[in-house]
Amino acid sequence: MNKLLKVTALAGVPLLAAAPLLAQDAGAAAAGGEAAEHTAFILNTLLFLIGGFLVMWMAAGFCMLEAGLVRSKNVTMQLTKNVSLFAIAAVMYYLIGYNVMYPLGNWSIGTDETGGYLGAFGVAVLEAVGIGAGEADDLSYASTGSDFFFQLMFAATTASIVSGTLAERIKLWPFLIFTVVLTGLIYPIQASWKWGGGFLDSQWGFLDFAGSTVVHSVGGWAALAGVLILGARNGKYKDGQVVPIVGSNMPLATLGTFILWLGWFGFNGGSQLAMGTVGDAADVSRIFANTNTAAAGGALAALILTQLMYGKPDLTMILNGALAGLVSITAEPLTPSLGMATIIGAIGGVIVVFGVPFLDKLKIDDVVGAIPVHLFGGIWGTLAVLLTNPDATFAGQIVPILIVGVFVFVVSYIVWSILNMAGGIRVDAEAEETGLDMTELGIEAYPEFST
Amino acid sequence: MNKLLKVTALAGVPLLAAAPLLAQDAGAAAAGGEAAEHTAFILNTLLFLIGGFLVMWMAAGFCMLEAGLVRSKNVTMQLTKNVSLFAIAAVMYYLIGYNVMYPLGNWSIGTDETGGYLGAFGVAVLEAVGIGAGEADDLSYASTGSDFFFQLMFAATTASIVSGTLAERIKLWPFLIFTVVLTGLIYPIQASWKWGGGFLDSQWGFLDFAGSTVVHSVGGWAALAGVLILGARNGKYKDGQVVPIVGSNMPLATLGTFILWLGWFGFNGGSQLAMGTVGDAADVSRIFANTNTAAAGGALAALILTQLMYGKPDLTMILNGALAGLVSITAEPLTPSLGMATIIGAIGGVIVVFGVPFLDKLKIDDVVGAIPVHLFGGIWGTLAVLLTNPDATFAGQIVPILIVGVFVFVVSYIVWSILNMAGGIRVDAEAEETGLDMTELGIEAYPEFST
Amino acid sequence: MNKLLKVTALAGVPLLAAAPLLAQDAGAAAAGGEAAEHTAFILNTLLFLIGGFLVMWMAAGFCMLEAGLVRSKNVTMQLTKNVSLFAIAAVMYYLIGYNVMYPLGNWSIGTDETGGYLGAFGVAVLEAVGIGAGEADDLSYASTGSDFFFQLMFAATTASIVSGTLAERIKLWPFLIFTVVLTGLIYPIQASWKWGGGFLDSQWGFLDFAGSTVVHSVGGWAALAGVLILGARNGKYKDGQVVPIVGSNMPLATLGTFILWLGWFGFNGGSQLAMGTVGDAADVSRIFANTNTAAAGGALAALILTQLMYGKPDLTMILNGALAGLVSITAEPLTPSLGMATIIGAIGGVIVVFGVPFLDKLKIDDVVGAIPVHLFGGIWGTLAVLLTNPDATFAGQIVPILIVGVFVFVVSYIVWSILNMAGGIRVDAEAEETGLDMTELGIEAYPEFST
Repeated sequence: MNKLLKVTALAGVPLLAAAPLLAQDAGAAAAGGEAAEHTAFILNTLLFLIGGFLVMWMAAGFCMLEAGLVRSKNVTMQLTKNVSLFAIAAVMYYLIGYNVMYPLGNWSIGTDETGGYLGAFGVAVLEAVGIGAGEADDLSYASTGSDFFFQLMFAATTASIVSGTLAERIKLWPFLIFTVVLTGLIYPIQASWKWGGGFLDSQWGFLDFAGSTVVHSVGGWAALAGVLILGARNGKYKDGQVVPIVGSNMPLATLGTFILWLGWFGFNGGSQLAMGTVGDAADVSRIFANTNTAAAGGALAALILTQLMYGKPDLTMILNGALAGLVSITAEPLTPSLGMATIIGAIGGVIVVFGVPFLDKLKIDDVVGAIPVHLFGGIWGTLAVLLTNPDATFAGQIVPILIVGVFVFVVSYIVWSILNMAGGIRVDAEAEETGLDMTELGIEAYPEFST
Repeated sequence: MNKLLKVTALAGVPLLAAAPLLAQDAGAAAAGGEAAEHTAFILNTLLFLIGGFLVMWMAAGFCMLEAGLVRSKNVTMQLTKNVSLFAIAAVMYYLIGYNVMYPLGNWSIGTDETGGYLGAFGVAVLEAVGIGAGEADDLSYASTGSDFFFQLMFAATTASIVSGTLAERIKLWPFLIFTVVLTGLIYPIQASWKWGGGFLDSQWGFLDFAGSTVVHSVGGWAALAGVLILGARNGKYKDGQVVPIVGSNMPLATLGTFILWLGWFGFNGGSQLAMGTVGDAADVSRIFANTNTAAAGGALAALILTQLMYGKPDLTMILNGALAGLVSITAEPLTPSLGMATIIGAIGGVIVVFGVPFLDKLKIDDVVGAIPVHLFGGIWGTLAVLLTNPDATFAGQIVPILIVGVFVFVVSYIVWSILNMAGGIRVDAEAEETGLDMTELGIEAYPEFST
Repeated sequence: MNKLLKVTALAGVPLLAAAPLLAQDAGAAAAGGEAAEHTAFILNTLLFLIGGFLVMWMAAGFCMLEAGLVRSKNVTMQLTKNVSLFAIAAVMYYLIGYNVMYPLGNWSIGTDETGGYLGAFGVAVLEAVGIGAGEADDLSYASTGSDFFFQLMFAATTASIVSGTLAERIKLWPFLIFTVVLTGLIYPIQASWKWGGGFLDSQWGFLDFAGSTVVHSVGGWAALAGVLILGARNGKYKDGQVVPIVGSNMPLATLGTFILWLGWFGFNGGSQLAMGTVGDAADVSRIFANTNTAAAGGALAALILTQLMYGKPDLTMILNGALAGLVSITAEPLTPSLGMATIIGAIGGVIVVFGVPFLDKLKIDDVVGAIPVHLFGGIWGTLAVLLTNPDATFAGQIVPILIVGVFVFVVSYIVWSILNMAGGIRVDAEAEETGLDMTELGIEAYPEFST
C-alpha cells in the first residue's frame, strides 16, 4: 500500500501499454493512451471507494463483535466507544493523520532518500470540485478524495482493535482521548515509515501489503500497553484460577465476524492501490480469493483444534480463528497460492487457540482476544511474507516489526500512564460490578432482558 | 441528482474529451471517443448499481434502528412494517412513481420551460435485453434499469423515515396504505419538481444534491402529519412530565446506524449521477469523504454536548447525531471542504440534541427521533448549501423548502385523516399496553426473553 | 452463468464493437479495440468481485436468519454450523469443486460435444501475480481469481440452505462432513452439467441463469434427504397436531432476510458474467431491478395472503415470501419485464405460504422453511423461465429439474445414511431437550437472558 512506490512504478509503464505498441498512428495512440489513462484513474478511484466503504463497514464489525463478547451490563459502553472512536478517527485523520502519513516527500524529519521519520503537518485537502483530467493531483494514481477515504478507514481500524481488549472496566473519556492520539499521531507516524515511503520502506525494504504490522499489530501493541496499566477485570483471576467470563450475545459476535470478513476484501483488495490494468485486476482477484481462504483456514484450524483439545468446538475461538487468518494474510495476500494462503491462515488460527490461554497465564485480561488475533497474528503474518515473496528479507521483516512494536508500545504506554495519572483510566470497583452502562452512561443495552 | 440537467450538461462536453483533441486522425478519434462514451455509460451504470444496493441496505438500517429503539413488545410490528414498506415502495415506484418523477418533458401539468408540476403516468419500462450501444435510452447517461433501481431506493427511504416516528401505536394496514400513497404519489410528485426538472428546478434554481429536502424532510413532514393525528403513546406525557420510554436493544440501534452510515455513501455518492470522467470520479470521492466526516461531526457534537448538558454521553443521541450529520450534508455533499463538511454535520448533531426535547415539550411523541434528524436536519442541510455553493440563492432554497413542506404536510395530513376516519389508525389502549406484537400479529420478537 | 457459452459468444463479437467499425485507420482501431478489450476484462472482473462479496455476505444472512428462527438453546450451534460450513466450502471448492465444475472441456467422463458428466480433478490455480494482458487465462472473459471467488460463493450458499432445515437436532460433525461432500462433489458435479457446459447444457438446452435449480433446489433436495433420515424435532408433531415452535429472535431473522436480499443482487447480477459492453451493463441493471421487485412481490403476496388466511400477517412468512420471490426469479432474472418479475416473485410467495403447512402435514420438520423457499421456489422459478424466455423448452426445463433432483436427493440420502450408520447424525433426546448449545458446545448464545 505504498503510494509513492506505486506512483513511481506506474510512471514508467504506460497503462494498458499494448495500445501504443500496436498503434500505427502516433496521434491516435496518444489519444487512446490518454483515454486509457483516464479510465485507469477512474477504476483505481472506484477500487478505493469500494474498498473504503468495505473497510468502514469493519467498524460496525468490531462494534458488534465486541458488543457480543462483553457482558450485557457493559454493552452500551462498548457501542458508545466504537461509534465515537470511528468519528474521532475521521476527524483526527483529516486534521493531522493524512499528511503525517503521506508527506509526499515533505518530511518534517528525514528525506525520501536518507529515510523519512516524521511526515508533514496540515489538514487534508482534496482535489477541487469538477476538475479536468489535467488538474488531478496524480493522474496516474487515483483521486485524492478516494485515497483519503480509503486510508482513513485503516486509522479507524487500529482504534477499533484497542477498544475490545480494554472493555468492561475502562472509562469512556480516557479511551477516547487515547484514540485521538492513536489516530492522529501514533498510527500515521509509524504508517508513514512504510506506506509514506519512510525509512522502513526505503532503508529496510519492509514488506507489509495491507498492514499485518502497520495496522493490526499497532492496534495490538496499543491495547497491550493499555491493558498492562489498566489491569484485569475484577474476578477474572482468582486463587490462581482463570474464571471464564462469557459474552452476552453470540449472534452479535458472529455477525461482527462476518462483517469483518466481508470488509477485509476491501482492506486487502483495495491495498493493491490499482485496478486499471489487466494485471492489477487479476491481482486484486488473487487477493480476494486468498483473503477468503485464509479466513477459512483460520476458522477450520480453530474448529478442529478446539475439538481435539477440549472435546468441544469453541465458537468464540472459531470466530477469532477466522479473524486471525485474515490478519495473517494481510501482510501478503497477493503472492501466496490458494493452498499456501489457507495454511498461513490456519497457522493464524492455531496461534489464537494457544494465544488466548497464554495471555491468561500472564494474567493479561484481553476481553475479546484482540491481542492474540491482531498482535500475534500480525507478527506471524508479517513473517509469513518470507514464505512466498522473494523480495522479502528476514531482517527487512523482523526489524520493522520490532521498531514499530517498540515505538507504539512505548508511546502508548506513556499516553496511557499520563491519562492514568491525570484522573485514572479505570472505573471504581463498584461501577465495574454494577456495569458501565448504568454507572457511566445511564442507558442499559437490553433494559427488558438482562437479569 | 437532476437527470435532465445532467444529460444536457454531458451532451455539450464529450466524455474523456482529451482524446479527440489530441488525435491526429479523425476516424480513430471517433472510434476512441465512442469507446470512451461506452465506458462512461458502463461506469455511470455501475455507480447507480453500487449506489442502489447501498441505499437498499439503508432499509435494513432503518429497520434495525427502529427495532432497537422500540420496546420489545412492539418489535415484530416494527420489523413487519419495515419489510413491507420496502416491498410496497418497490411496486408503487414501478407502477407510478418513476414516470411521475422523471417525465422527461412529458408533463401532465406544466412544461419544462414554464415549470413542470405533475409528471407522466405509466409503468416503468426498462431497456430491452441485450441492447446494442445505439439502442440505449440515453447513451450519454446510464442504463435505465440502473437509474430506476437507484431512484426507487430513495422513495423507499422516505417511507422508512415515517415508520419510526409512529411506532408503538399505529395499526399496520393504515400505515401500509399511507406508504402506498407516499411512495407512489407524494414523494415522486414533489421530487419531480426538482429532480425531474420541474418548477422548483427550472423556476427557482433550487439546489438539493441528494435530497435533504426532497427525501429526508419529506419523510419528516409526512411523519409529523401522522403523529399529530395519531397522538403520543399512552403514558409518555404524564402530569406535565416527559416519561422516558427506553429502547429494548441498543446493539440493534447501533447496527442500524452503522448500516445507514454505510448506505449513505451510495445515497450521496450515487447522486453525482456519473463516474465516467476524471472529474466525476474525483467528485464522487469528495462526496464519500464529506459524507463520512459530516456523520463524524454529528456524532461528536452529540457526544460532547450530551456530556456537557447531562453529565453523561447519551448513545441514542450520538447515533441520531451521526444520522443528522448525514442528513445535513445530503443537500450539498460536493462543494464543502472536509472541514466545512464536519462543521455542517456537527451543527446537525447539535440540532438533534436540542430538537428531541423540543418536540417533547410540544408533546409530539416521535419514538426514534426521526423528525429532528430528518426534518430539522433536512432543513438545516438545505440551507447549508448557501455556505459553500455560490449557485445557491436564499430564496431558491427557502421557498422550495416551504413549498415542499406545505405540499407534503397538507397532503399527508389529509391522507392520514381519511385513514383515521375510515377505521382508525391507532390501536386501542389495551392493545397498546399489551404490545402490538401479540395483539396485531401474534408473534413475539423475543418469546424467550421479554419479561 | 455458463462460462463456456459466454466465452464462445464473446469470441465472435468484438467488445465495444463499434470502435473498429467506425475507425478509418486499422492500426488505431486495433489499438482502440485492445484497450477496450482490457477495459472489458477489468469491468467483468470487477463485476465478479462485487458480485462475489455480495454473495459471500449471504452466508451471514443465512446465519442470522437461522439463528433468529431457532430457539435460544440452539443458537450457538446454528452459528457454529454456519461459520464452519462457509469455511469448509471455501476449502473444498478450492481442492476439488472448481475444476469439477468448470473442466473447460477436460471431462473425466464425457465430452463437450456428446455431453459432459464428470469434470476434471485438481486444485484451483489462479493466474500468476502481475500478469501482462497477454497472459490472462481468458482475456475475453475475466480474471480466473475473480471467477473462482464468485463461483465459490454459490457452493457455500448450497450448504447454508441445508443447515436451516436440519437445525435443533443434528449433530455438528455429521453435518460438517456432509458439507464436505456437498461443496466438494455433489454441488460441483451437477453444476458442471449446466454451467460447465455439460450434458444438461449441451444436450437439453437447460436454462438456469443464476441457479434456481443448480443452487437452490440442490440445497433443498440435500436438506430433504437429510430431514427424512433425521426426523422431526421431539414434540413438533403430537397427537396428530402440529405444535408451533417459535424462533427466538425476530430482528435477527429479519436482518438475515435483508442481508440475503442485498446479497442476491450479486448472486443474480454477477451471473450475467460480463459488464464490459453497453448491452451487458444494461442487462445487469435489468437483473438488479427484477431481482428486487421479485422479492417485493414475494413479500407482499405472503403479507396479503397470511392476512386473508389467518387474519393476521405473519412476519416469518413475509420474510420467507421475499426469499421465495428471490429464488423464483433466479433462473431467469433477465428476460422478464418488471411487472412479470413481480408476478413470478409473488407466486413464489404464495408457494411458501402453502408449502410450509404442506410439509407439516407430511410431518417433515423443516425448521426455517428452507425446503418451501429453495426447493419449491427453485422448481417454480426454473419453470417460470418458460414464461419469458423463448429459448426455453418445457422438456429442457423439466427434465433437468428431475435429473438434478434425483441425483442430489439419492446421493445425499446415501451420504446421510452412511453418516447415520457410522455414529448417528442426531443428538439424543435429552440433549435435544436441554439444547445443543450446552450439550454439544458448552457455550450459551445468550447466557444472561434465556429463561
